[in-house]
Amino acid sequence: MHGVRAVFPGRFQPFHLGHLGVVKYVLEKVDEIVIVVGSSQESHTYQNPFTAGERIFMIKESLREEGISMDRVYIIPIPDVLMNSVWVYHVRMYCPPFSMVVARNPLVLRLFKEAGYELLVPPPISREVYSSTNIRRKMIFGEEWKSLVPGKVYQILKEIRGEERLREIARGETYGEER
Amino acid sequence: MHGVRAVFPGRFQPFHLGHLGVVKYVLEKVDEIVIVVGSSQESHTYQNPFTAGERIFMIKESLREEGISMDRVYIIPIPDVLMNSVWVYHVRMYCPPFSMVVARNPLVLRLFKEAGYELLVPPPISREVYSSTNIRRKMIFGEEWKSLVPGKVYQILKEIRGEERLREIARGETYGEER
Amino acid sequence: MHGVRAVFPGRFQPFHLGHLGVVKYVLEKVDEIVIVVGSSQESHTYQNPFTAGERIFMIKESLREEGISMDRVYIIPIPDVLMNSVWVYHVRMYCPPFSMVVARNPLVLRLFKEAGYELLVPPPISREVYSSTNIRRKMIFGEEWKSLVPGKVYQILKEIRGEERLREIARGETYGEER
Amino acid sequence: MHGVRAVFPGRFQPFHLGHLGVVKYVLEKVDEIVIVVGSSQESHTYQNPFTAGERIFMIKESLREEGISMDRVYIIPIPDVLMNSVWVYHVRMYCPPFSMVVARNPLVLRLFKEAGYELLVPPPISREVYSSTNIRRKMIFGEEWKSLVPGKVYQILKEIRGEERLREIARGETYGEER
Amino acid sequence: MHGVRAVFPGRFQPFHLGHLGVVKYVLEKVDEIVIVVGSSQESHTYQNPFTAGERIFMIKESLREEGISMDRVYIIPIPDVLMNSVWVYHVRMYCPPFSMVVARNPLVLRLFKEAGYELLVPPPISREVYSSTNIRRKMIFGEEWKSLVPGKVYQILKEIRGEERLREIARGETYGEER
Amino acid sequence: MHGVRAVFPGRFQPFHLGHLGVVKYVLEKVDEIVIVVGSSQESHTYQNPFTAGERIFMIKESLREEGISMDRVYIIPIPDVLMNSVWVYHVRMYCPPFSMVVARNPLVLRLFKEAGYELLVPPPISREVYSSTNIRRKMIFGEEWKSLVPGKVYQILKEIRGEERLREIARGETYGEER
Repeated sequence: MHGVRAVFPGRFQPFHLGHLGVVKYVLEKVDEIVIVVGSSQESHTYQNPFTAGERIFMIKESLREEGISMDRVYIIPIPDVLMNSVWVYHVRMYCPPFSMVVARNPLVLRLFKEAGYELLVPPPISREVYSSTNIRRKMIFGEEWKSLVPGKVYQILKEIRGEERLREIARGETYGEER
Repeated sequence: MHGVRAVFPGRFQPFHLGHLGVVKYVLEKVDEIVIVVGSSQESHTYQNPFTAGERIFMIKESLREEGISMDRVYIIPIPDVLMNSVWVYHVRMYCPPFSMVVARNPLVLRLFKEAGYELLVPPPISREVYSSTNIRRKMIFGEEWKSLVPGKVYQILKEIRGEERLREIARGETYGEER
Repeated sequence: MHGVRAVFPGRFQPFHLGHLGVVKYVLEKVDEIVIVVGSSQESHTYQNPFTAGERIFMIKESLREEGISMDRVYIIPIPDVLMNSVWVYHVRMYCPPFSMVVARNPLVLRLFKEAGYELLVPPPISREVYSSTNIRRKMIFGEEWKSLVPGKVYQILKEIRGEERLREIARGETYGEER
Repeated sequence: MHGVRAVFPGRFQPFHLGHLGVVKYVLEKVDEIVIVVGSSQESHTYQNPFTAGERIFMIKESLREEGISMDRVYIIPIPDVLMNSVWVYHVRMYCPPFSMVVARNPLVLRLFKEAGYELLVPPPISREVYSSTNIRRKMIFGEEWKSLVPGKVYQILKEIRGEERLREIARGETYGEER
Repeated sequence: MHGVRAVFPGRFQPFHLGHLGVVKYVLEKVDEIVIVVGSSQESHTYQNPFTAGERIFMIKESLREEGISMDRVYIIPIPDVLMNSVWVYHVRMYCPPFSMVVARNPLVLRLFKEAGYELLVPPPISREVYSSTNIRRKMIFGEEWKSLVPGKVYQILKEIRGEERLREIARGETYGEER
Repeated sequence: MHGVRAVFPGRFQPFHLGHLGVVKYVLEKVDEIVIVVGSSQESHTYQNPFTAGERIFMIKESLREEGISMDRVYIIPIPDVLMNSVWVYHVRMYCPPFSMVVARNPLVLRLFKEAGYELLVPPPISREVYSSTNIRRKMIFGEEWKSLVPGKVYQILKEIRGEERLREIARGETYGEER
């Protein structure tokens, strides 16, 4: 019943092809992946424009589109704790049993290593291209970003008018005062 | 892409055959079900002995055991907000788009109805039997409870020594003082 | 510009004729009253069925009905702090300058006295009659309660179907499990 | 009993003549205005130097000075929620029934529009002049700011020695370390 | 530099001779004790009448009175986390390195054991006598309690008029409504 | 029993020779010092790399090394409150009775002065040298910092591999996205 399970934490604002590549890479190595959608309490800010629900929806639809069965996948939103030193245990509380973490961030790797987890570092991708920050910037300035995300992410972001939302947020943060 | 989706909120401490019946009932009526695991921040108390991760795990394994594909199911943990009047919108923030709620609790039904959602009231089950409170009580007092939960729930609760945990919690709350 | 101002804290679930009597009593003694609507973050529970907005609305409409000008009245919602020993300073942070508190609760009186405020203890009313707890109970059981509240409170509670809400809450807390 | 009510959210650090102009504009259009004092839990920071109580006091005294009766005005402090997507419903919980929002910020307008509220966009003012950020900056550097705020705001800020507080905060944030 | 350190968690409302006995017992076994004052954010309630500062003060003065040097003692207040399953790691975050926990509560023992800590179970005392709950009850009803606490605890509770505070709290919770 | 007690608030990230000088200075003036370790809930960030427990440990070991008896010292961690105007009262809640504050930050001095406390401003040290920010920067870039901290702080930071942690945090904040 209990195969090897790996946790893959991220904010996925939005989920892009680099993330998708990691998911596929992990599913070749282990039995099940637990995609942790961090900062789940936040939305409609420049760093976190999309709600946890929208992000979960984009991820699931993208995996379905790729023919990846959800039977091997968990997608779990987790709100921030301000206490980094207990964060690993917070993740553990929200997830099914797991033995491995997937990350490249050195602090994330260290925190999980200190807590006794195995580390799985995926092969490098070109981070300046496949980067959520980069994609959000392109969405605001009207540059091409369709090629950087799964088809379903593009479709959903169009439907919820994600570019317009991002631009309004960006303008609002310039105005500031009003809210 | 967007079939009809229904939200089914509960605490699932633990998930029992009554809950499983509701899931099956809902999946006959709509395209996808979103099982909302409430009070996700709590564990190791008498009301909420099991962590969100343990509850998600029990639910997923039970559905797998029943041959229900996760492709039609979301399982989403949501921490409590103290503000009942915004609770519906908190759920909405954490979930993919949905148009319906599954509940019997009159307040839950009212809050979602006022927010414009359709209601789906499942047929009655014998609540005095299929009740998480009842099952927790039986676990503490060593009564038979195996027949009230899916096989996988029983198996997982045995593995994590759930009865022992519940008894320790119950004794701890009698002692009180110490912690 | 700075007459004498007195703070009158309560939860006002709902505002009743006893509360109204206190407001009138205070306005005879001081220049301005600051009605503090406590536990403002809570609603739809048995202890706090009505939202802060509904309570503020009921209070303002009742005072208007009595011909009391809002120019001498502040109505300020304050969320709970769990730390009773800083509560007085939390109230101070949310209110215009004041020098006096209106209360009968001995702990409230002590906390404000220790912080250097004057105390104003209104004359006793029959607490078993003019009591929000009592009124909520009557609303649930269909007993007469109209004579215990200002006309506008009655009218608003009828409009928002307060009795129905209270009964649903009461039933939900019996069911418990489901949410 | 229920005329048209419009909500006007802001932080009012401090309340200035631009804000006062909006209040007058709104009171010509609707029956009652609900001034929402946001970020109410914060004070003594550069972004939010004044407490909710001080801000409420400045607003009420300014309106009184202008001869505006409080009978048509609510002033309601609301603490921040970190969840922007539920913010509108948080405001709704704290306010009397309303149907309209007054704002220029595009994100605020969108969030309320999506929730079904009417929008009221006041005519433009010269934002580089009537801006709380600008006024706080002037207060720190000893420039003239008296002409930008209502007389009562000026008087209260002098009494509570607002310029001194702002300068201390600004210096403290440079020192940083110590606290 | 790093001798053996043991954590002793409690609420100490108030610190009594049973607690003092445990401290002495532990200091015979290990190099240093870390007294964790739990529920540190709470005060002026029936369960937690005294502030963290008052409790720390009573403990330190009692140890001094007994001739126990603070060089071997830490007293550390820790606010509650609602998440029991991460509580051990929260304690770890607030404390110097330790390898052992002192407790009798079975749940506390289990949580620390699962996290890899050694357990130290002190010999039984007569819990119905040396119990903070019992002492608080006696303080309210005017029964003798002086013989149950260290001399300094008695002296400090007299100085801060602890009995009066407890009685006011008890009465306030009967009145309820008002705050 | 109650000598003069002074509170010395800081974040101590890490505790350096400037801080130690203040402690010695204060202990010449008053009977007892209460070292308040602020932002106690935070760790593993660039501003607050070390846990409250690590900071408390470094302070205590440094004082022991200097021959300062803990009998005259309290070290008390306090989590942030977002409400600066109640912060003083939050400190008061967590500490034994005190009458004086030790600080140089003008805002801290003002807040305590307004609350009726005496102020003790220690003589200036060269802040550009003895500064935690400066030390953290040096730790990251491999510059000499050993001479700026007590011997025990150096030893502990080496043992817990503090430089490595700081560098990982710094790199993680550049990567950003991933967590």
